[in-house]
Amino acid sequence: MVNETKKEFSAKKNFNFSEWYSNIIEKAEIVDLRLGIKGFITIRPWGTLIIEKLFDMFEEELQGKGHLPVIMPSVIPESNLKRESSHIKGFTPQVFWLETEKGEEKLALRPTSETVFTPMFSLWIRSHRDLPLKLYQRGSVFRYDTKATRPLIRGREFQWIECHDAFATKHDAEAQVQEDIDTTEKILHEKLGIPFFPMKRPQWDKFAGAEYTIGSDVLMPDGKMIQQPSTHFMGQKFSRAFDAKFRTKDDREDFIYTTAYGPAMSRILVSIISTHGDDFGLVLPFSVSPIQVVIVPIYTTKNKDKIMKYSHEIMEKIRIHGINATLDSRDIYSPGWKFHDSELKGIPFRIEIGEKEFKSKKITLFIRDIKKKQVISASSLKNISKLGKEYDERLKRNADSFVKNKIVDCKTKADIKKTVDSGKIARVNFCSVQEQGLHCAEIIEKEIGAEVRGTLANKNEKQSGNCAICSKKAEAVVYIAKSY
Amino acid sequence: MVNETKKEFSAKKNFNFSEWYSNIIEKAEIVDLRLGIKGFITIRPWGTLIIEKLFDMFEEELQGKGHLPVIMPSVIPESNLKRESSHIKGFTPQVFWLETEKGEEKLALRPTSETVFTPMFSLWIRSHRDLPLKLYQRGSVFRYDTKATRPLIRGREFQWIECHDAFATKHDAEAQVQEDIDTTEKILHEKLGIPFFPMKRPQWDKFAGAEYTIGSDVLMPDGKMIQQPSTHFMGQKFSRAFDAKFRTKDDREDFIYTTAYGPAMSRILVSIISTHGDDFGLVLPFSVSPIQVVIVPIYTTKNKDKIMKYSHEIMEKIRIHGINATLDSRDIYSPGWKFHDSELKGIPFRIEIGEKEFKSKKITLFIRDIKKKQVISASSLKNISKLGKEYDERLKRNADSFVKNKIVDCKTKADIKKTVDSGKIARVNFCSVQEQGLHCAEIIEKEIGAEVRGTLANKNEKQSGNCAICSKKAEAVVYIAKSY
Repeated sequence: MVNETKKEFSAKKNFNFSEWYSNIIEKAEIVDLRLGIKGFITIRPWGTLIIEKLFDMFEEELQGKGHLPVIMPSVIPESNLKRESSHIKGFTPQVFWLETEKGEEKLALRPTSETVFTPMFSLWIRSHRDLPLKLYQRGSVFRYDTKATRPLIRGREFQWIECHDAFATKHDAEAQVQEDIDTTEKILHEKLGIPFFPMKRPQWDKFAGAEYTIGSDVLMPDGKMIQQPSTHFMGQKFSRAFDAKFRTKDDREDFIYTTAYGPAMSRILVSIISTHGDDFGLVLPFSVSPIQVVIVPIYTTKNKDKIMKYSHEIMEKIRIHGINATLDSRDIYSPGWKFHDSELKGIPFRIEIGEKEFKSKKITLFIRDIKKKQVISASSLKNISKLGKEYDERLKRNADSFVKNKIVDCKTKADIKKTVDSGKIARVNFCSVQEQGLHCAEIIEKEIGAEVRGTLANKNEKQSGNCAICSKKAEAVVYIAKSY
Repeated sequence: MVNETKKEFSAKKNFNFSEWYSNIIEKAEIVDLRLGIKGFITIRPWGTLIIEKLFDMFEEELQGKGHLPVIMPSVIPESNLKRESSHIKGFTPQVFWLETEKGEEKLALRPTSETVFTPMFSLWIRSHRDLPLKLYQRGSVFRYDTKATRPLIRGREFQWIECHDAFATKHDAEAQVQEDIDTTEKILHEKLGIPFFPMKRPQWDKFAGAEYTIGSDVLMPDGKMIQQPSTHFMGQKFSRAFDAKFRTKDDREDFIYTTAYGPAMSRILVSIISTHGDDFGLVLPFSVSPIQVVIVPIYTTKNKDKIMKYSHEIMEKIRIHGINATLDSRDIYSPGWKFHDSELKGIPFRIEIGEKEFKSKKITLFIRDIKKKQVISASSLKNISKLGKEYDERLKRNADSFVKNKIVDCKTKADIKKTVDSGKIARVNFCSVQEQGLHCAEIIEKEIGAEVRGTLANKNEKQSGNCAICSKKAEAVVYIAKSY
């Protein structure tokens, strides 16, 4: 599967990010686009193994917080999809419909699954005793996007988890939205070292059918924002549409409150690649790398058996600590090529074992992010978990310092333009994040090529002053950036 | 999610299996059919958790045998699907097509993925050094089946793993077919206690596009066979269609040999339910039960804190052995209701903890399959893994003894009819499993309502004598049964 001659790539991340990204996802064997179906890609083993780990992380976290998995159909009947009017307006233009035989109801490939979860809620929930009910499913969703697609960033099929939760009160549902942000923080930031800004979207940019949406924006190296997991407070909009009622504690009838949360694994992979990668390839966090330690044996025909045996022993010594160590025993490649391959794939630690290491019982450890070699004693391999933790802390620190000072207070259009053009985020007094603010947002989009991403969800920012665009009294402090 | 009044079910497994099955999948909260989309069902948390465990078992086994995961598109372009002529004949009648805009190629929802894997093989494989290449993906596939659907048994969408493997020689590819049967044995039989018959299908019943197919048939309690994982030897049929060539060791050009293996998780769940369940509900193997030990606390307002604390301690004592123990702390249900619920859901072990158990430091252990209570000391909880192993051994032994003596040698049509009507399998001398045998197979289907399932793949059975139908010289010993 690897082709010795085609592994080099020359694009520089900080010079031409877009080319660097296109190159690295191909050379590090994350994706393959050659099936040639617009918006549908092949994710190769290295990419899939990372995505599987991301699924595991989220599933563990979600189950720990009381969610249970379900498997719903990948299709949605037309009558379900069209039941909630603002939902249908937002989604039907970008839906794949299936050709069905006469007499059968039209079916859409699910773009998202509120319209099948809510009718099931109406059957499963009778009383407040059945609440909260927190469910999720993993799988593909489909959008018939006619815009340009970009691998893993914008496609017609993507892999995600969608959580759909039902509550007895508005208060409980809004607490869930906070819990969802906390889940994003725990995984995206703490485990994967990717800082994000939880943005409460302006009304014109919320999820179709939601009362409000909080999207987690990550700043890409090119200064553009990309939306990562978003969480939606639906209030009673879907439950009213699907007549999903329950008996309250004081024996009244009421509609349930619902929320939805949707982390997309393929897109989170984009941020892992982009945030941590460098000009030598991927730099995967220790927590998510499918191989955490690769052992490369260096031998001649004469000492091969001995070196391989010793390498195996070292591998087992690491594995007992629950770490995924792999011996790269592929005979067809040279050690040098294997070094190069492991750096390209972003494996955190590489151990090189040759005659010298065998004799001295010392081990040469190569650390991917800092590209430094350390000589350690074989007995200190037990510390490799600790080194892994430090590794991830370092990635996180670097990523945090990249976003630090990226937010610039701006008072004028010119200020905003200068800020976003330099890959930063403008913090701006803004007339309104309700529908009446849309006009000013459109001016920003047209004249500056940037987008009002919303207000910070985890901070109640007081504003004073006037809107930077229309000079009316400002009601909000918004963040403006270029975006994907 | 549970409704106290609706949990009873009265159908008897051995009296009316069909009704029993329909009842149990609903009452044990495995599926819900009320979305009302023909062939598309909702799998509820209890069913999904089992399916997730099945995925884990297969993925671990497959990775251990050198397979790597990929994620391919859920759609297949028309030109790919139609490239291999016998494949298209077999599959296009039952394919969902997507409505696409003018100028875009027609896309089908994948019914199976040979026609996207093989073109990728042609790109990824250059030389014998790249072989074998063993890949798999987990996900949904779709069949536009117009026949009657049955939940988890026959549907329009189902959850499976599909392995697609490429080899340099016919010999290697056929060895893979044997390895696939071994994987089925390891999981289906050894772990889940479900005996099966690996049947080499007659030529008229092979996978569309394969040279031959081996299907693993499981005998259901009603005496009908159900097909479980099947493995297909494609030879060079798909590689020729997609021009997937490689350089051999002796520097010639040749087409790769491919195989496919497809365990369907939702269908394996059917066999778990049907093989082990009884008139009180599911009986889940210890190896696959999402909850392996449930602890039911029995308390009054007065001793609640003490009992709950002790129950927690017991739970932790079990968990340190890597066992999934759960405390059923749902306040809204009575202990009696919880007992009933845990039996319905098939949880292998239940521990009841009340004042008596607290005082004596003894524990009452209820064992689901034999429905017996044992009093054990708290300290012997460390043996619960061992009890779990014995539990699974017992289920397997019972299932094995169910199929024992179910095979009856038959010489005449009347013999065959009597055998299959009594829920057994007829072993019969048969003219041919090549196309020329189809006529006799059709007679069996029309007159007896049974099916020629094939020859035993793991046994070279010598035949002597004549075909039980046409009296020509028999070339094969086949197995005939009713089937799903």
